[in-house]
Amino acid sequence: MHSKIMPALLGAAALTSAAAHAAPTPEDKAAASLIASAKFAKAQASLKSDYDTIIQDIITLTEIEAPPFKETARGNAYMAMLKAEGLTDVEMDEVGNVMGMRKGTGGGPLIVVTAHLDTVFPAGTNVKVRREGNGLYAPGIGDDTSSLPVQLAFIRAMNRAGFTTKADILFMGNVGEEGPGDLRGTRHLFSKGKYKDKIKYFISFEPGQPGRITNAGTGSRRYKVTFNGPGGHSMGDFGIVSPAFAMGNAMVAFGKLKAPAEPKTVYNIGILEGGTSVNSIPFSTAMTIDMRSNGKPELDAEEKAFLGLLPGAVAQENAARSTAKGKITYDAKLIGDRPVGSTPETARIIKVAGAAARASGVEPKYGAGSTDSNIPMSLGVEAVTLGSGFETFRAHSLEEGMKMNPPEDLKNMGVGLATVLTLAQAR
Amino acid sequence: MHSKIMPALLGAAALTSAAAHAAPTPEDKAAASLIASAKFAKAQASLKSDYDTIIQDIITLTEIEAPPFKETARGNAYMAMLKAEGLTDVEMDEVGNVMGMRKGTGGGPLIVVTAHLDTVFPAGTNVKVRREGNGLYAPGIGDDTSSLPVQLAFIRAMNRAGFTTKADILFMGNVGEEGPGDLRGTRHLFSKGKYKDKIKYFISFEPGQPGRITNAGTGSRRYKVTFNGPGGHSMGDFGIVSPAFAMGNAMVAFGKLKAPAEPKTVYNIGILEGGTSVNSIPFSTAMTIDMRSNGKPELDAEEKAFLGLLPGAVAQENAARSTAKGKITYDAKLIGDRPVGSTPETARIIKVAGAAARASGVEPKYGAGSTDSNIPMSLGVEAVTLGSGFETFRAHSLEEGMKMNPPEDLKNMGVGLATVLTLAQAR
Repeated sequence: MHSKIMPALLGAAALTSAAAHAAPTPEDKAAASLIASAKFAKAQASLKSDYDTIIQDIITLTEIEAPPFKETARGNAYMAMLKAEGLTDVEMDEVGNVMGMRKGTGGGPLIVVTAHLDTVFPAGTNVKVRREGNGLYAPGIGDDTSSLPVQLAFIRAMNRAGFTTKADILFMGNVGEEGPGDLRGTRHLFSKGKYKDKIKYFISFEPGQPGRITNAGTGSRRYKVTFNGPGGHSMGDFGIVSPAFAMGNAMVAFGKLKAPAEPKTVYNIGILEGGTSVNSIPFSTAMTIDMRSNGKPELDAEEKAFLGLLPGAVAQENAARSTAKGKITYDAKLIGDRPVGSTPETARIIKVAGAAARASGVEPKYGAGSTDSNIPMSLGVEAVTLGSGFETFRAHSLEEGMKMNPPEDLKNMGVGLATVLTLAQAR
Repeated sequence: MHSKIMPALLGAAALTSAAAHAAPTPEDKAAASLIASAKFAKAQASLKSDYDTIIQDIITLTEIEAPPFKETARGNAYMAMLKAEGLTDVEMDEVGNVMGMRKGTGGGPLIVVTAHLDTVFPAGTNVKVRREGNGLYAPGIGDDTSSLPVQLAFIRAMNRAGFTTKADILFMGNVGEEGPGDLRGTRHLFSKGKYKDKIKYFISFEPGQPGRITNAGTGSRRYKVTFNGPGGHSMGDFGIVSPAFAMGNAMVAFGKLKAPAEPKTVYNIGILEGGTSVNSIPFSTAMTIDMRSNGKPELDAEEKAFLGLLPGAVAQENAARSTAKGKITYDAKLIGDRPVGSTPETARIIKVAGAAARASGVEPKYGAGSTDSNIPMSLGVEAVTLGSGFETFRAHSLEEGMKMNPPEDLKNMGVGLATVLTLAQAR
């Protein structure tokens, strides 16, 4: 979800550096001590010896297509991988999330560590991985397939190094993160899943570097608005109302909305469609729109303004032309609803993530994104989205790819692993 | 092309009845004398004995798909049929029109009698004919496939009845009548074809009854206007110009154009498209629009107004949002241009068509349409579009069909045949 974090990072004031902090915090001490330990050196050695396995697993999983709502085949494959690492309570839940537990020593919190199974690409997309130099190319390979095997490598590293943790860690591959999935995997986990009231911390791994700490969830509301009318022949029925003109009114009015710069709030017309032939007055046209904000009141206000302009746009067309054969009506369907949320920088999970980065020599940068973490954040559960390590590019495009740069990649993975271990109070 | 004549017929004042005429004209006398002749009775008997053959040929041709620009297979089949009727100079021209000559006795004019080969349906449409009661159903069966075998039956009737004509008659199946074809078959015939300067009369047969005489060609100009911009992420790039908003401006301005009621002039937004995903600012959107008029100056003025509003719509968006990443531009591509034209009711071809109808007991009705006749009409060549005889329905829809009602169908065909024979000065 590079493409989801990057925009926020680019956004004004969305990024703050914590470089100003002075004295080491308890989390800094804990992370530094962990990273300096002999066990962690073993864990790092495990990651290094696993590098080729990680790459092979990325290729294997990438080549099992996982379109929105069709993640089952990949879910089964990943579930088998989780089981092979010796996790307990391995299962696929009702919506397709797959998960397995690495039990703690007892009395500790439950931490969810997850990456998403789904890609944005429709069924039938060619997902064969192509290698070129140190690059691997295939739709979905970066976002978020590359994160799934890193989690497996974390488990092996913990096992080989002999780490025990106070916390229980539930490793997961979740469904429905991308657009149309509307976070349904995570939504289910926190609303109906069997662990729903037990989760204390939630870490979502997405492509990128772990120094980028996403501790704010940009909220979004997405609508598909359909304008309907009688339709007819361009010549014989000329003069009757047209959904195209009604939609034009709505588009222009939408474009005039003022959105606050802080918290950043935006809107977009993403997809336009309608009509059947050049000489037919359409009986239906539609626009699919996106509204986002880092602030809930601002998102609510924007949504209200958008929904409020639709009746006028339609009424204007019904007044401009004949309704003898029927009026224009509209239907605004909510197709996406990602809650706004954030985990304060004072929360333990964010302090640990920052400390693990700093202890690894990486300056943490905080930002907002739109990821699975939006759900726990909106519920007040401590959550963070971190980069799993690989440099990836062109997410959501057919030219999607990732680079293989072992020293950098392994260093990045180490930051993620140190975050999990510190948070879980590993020994 | 029921669907093309009907709208014009529904339009105000597009239809005038010639019932008011008093004394029989020379054409009335000629048509009446022809229809009363023993030879014409033989010709009618030939049509009757041919009815099943006509139906079988309609089925055969319908089941050879003929999408726009892909009429060759059907053209070859129809060319073989023209040859089998003993025509000379049978050929397929450079654009795919197929034709053959029935030579006259000499010194007479050249008459083109044609129906179009193409349908509106894309390749791969199921064109298998389904029979239900006295109905035959398949996409394209009515418009205009049903007219092609009627022309073959005319040739056989003329031959069996022993008719000679002073005129040379070129029977044809032409390509490109429907929307995207933009009349390219007839356009070629009159601009580059080998008979181009020799054609004196042009009769186009389309579905319907021959009492409906289309002697005016509604002109149309069709544009696909594409709006282009930098595109980007709905969050990260918010604030940059969007082709969606520019197009919205153009849609609203287009909807405010005033079109004269007489001669009837109309406009329509037929198809809207654009964008790739809900959270991407589109890099491209497009609208496909139709403008039509029964008057050339009115069509020219409407086109000028439409093209004139586009720069303002784009400039408005370029002023409303940031162009730092690029400006909105547009491209207006002419995708259809059917010339306005008409053949006056005083022209011989129209007088003959009216006389043949009246002499057969059918009251002629004159109207405007958008057919192959637009081309010769716009060039001042006498042209008319007549119904070939069958009652057809749901043209351009997947439920397209035709009725088999032999007495009525044969009567209608007789009117068409009498028109051709009278015009050709048959003996």
